[in-house]
Amino acid sequence: MNSYHSEIHLRSHGFTDIIDITGEVVRAVAEAGINEGMINIFVPGSTGSVTTMEYEYGVIEDLRSAIERLIPSKMHYSHDRSWGDGNGFSHVRAALMKPGLCIPVVAGMPTLGTWQQIVFIDFDNKPRNRKIIVQILGE
Amino acid sequence: MNSYHSEIHLRSHGFTDIIDITGEVVRAVAEAGINEGMINIFVPGSTGSVTTMEYEYGVIEDLRSAIERLIPSKMHYSHDRSWGDGNGFSHVRAALMKPGLCIPVVAGMPTLGTWQQIVFIDFDNKPRNRKIIVQILGE
Amino acid sequence: MNSYHSEIHLRSHGFTDIIDITGEVVRAVAEAGINEGMINIFVPGSTGSVTTMEYEYGVIEDLRSAIERLIPSKMHYSHDRSWGDGNGFSHVRAALMKPGLCIPVVAGMPTLGTWQQIVFIDFDNKPRNRKIIVQILGE
Repeated sequence: MNSYHSEIHLRSHGFTDIIDITGEVVRAVAEAGINEGMINIFVPGSTGSVTTMEYEYGVIEDLRSAIERLIPSKMHYSHDRSWGDGNGFSHVRAALMKPGLCIPVVAGMPTLGTWQQIVFIDFDNKPRNRKIIVQILGE
Repeated sequence: MNSYHSEIHLRSHGFTDIIDITGEVVRAVAEAGINEGMINIFVPGSTGSVTTMEYEYGVIEDLRSAIERLIPSKMHYSHDRSWGDGNGFSHVRAALMKPGLCIPVVAGMPTLGTWQQIVFIDFDNKPRNRKIIVQILGE
Repeated sequence: MNSYHSEIHLRSHGFTDIIDITGEVVRAVAEAGINEGMINIFVPGSTGSVTTMEYEYGVIEDLRSAIERLIPSKMHYSHDRSWGDGNGFSHVRAALMKPGLCIPVVAGMPTLGTWQQIVFIDFDNKPRNRKIIVQILGE
């Protein structure tokens, strides 16, 4: 069994931008030549997250609305008072949703359902260049 | 170190049905003969999740109430307008709670606390046959 | 590739006590001598969680407020009726936030961002001695 390191680089709009990264993850697994094992997809930073969902216009809108309702962007956040970059809500959202996810690899593919995509969510309050780590353990 | 693939098959009622799968996971680890390593328990699909909890009637009721309060089933969801299967709330719940979980394996057992069980939660709005993947890496 | 088991022992205050454990995790990876792989940080118990965040006074306060708003400690919980230890809210918070987290290891270090720390959150309603498991797979 070996460990393989790969990175996804992308440009995001911020403000709960939800980006489908399934193709990039599938490609990283193929390039590693792993047949059986596990992937860890991880955002190095404290204003982003990774999850899975049906990447469809309705669910994207629903998920963004739910996040805005649960952790409103217009509330008072202490982080903004101390740092002034106005992204306190981004930090809280990312801490609650966590920075990563693990997915099994079987027969050379992540074991996703038919209507299940891997997404990166950028909670920050400005466009950013982002790096996402895809760490693959397997054989 | 090796990778072992196992599956749990079960019938769920949907509507935030919370099902204890600890026994099946412990059995999968035993059958793999792994002594030290890690398990990834993963739902291939976008309306289910895996977490741990004290599997006790009170907590089950409390968790179901909290989920209904945070992501109500009776709200308007855009997914329902586009697809008409009425499970927009299921998709949002699953995306927020994520499809899987990793647990260390030590001395041939998942390192759970005494009052900690592994549960599958089915957020969908109908009974379903479900497959849950148990991927085990270890030696 | 090998599997290494390590434990962090700490004293927490409970009541959403948020404790930075980055130093202990980095030390565990160094002691394992792992260069490339993955860490699973896991709380054996059903009233704690692990996530990452910018460990800064403002975000700590914001995260604690958000958790109290989303899963209030003063509501009625069925768990309290059945068990009487008054920590129903702790169980619900931990089940929603999940007990663990995986982080890639590259060049001997967890791949954290510059302003990203690993934290243990104790949701229980009393001070406790806590054990956190750091399971490391790599080479």
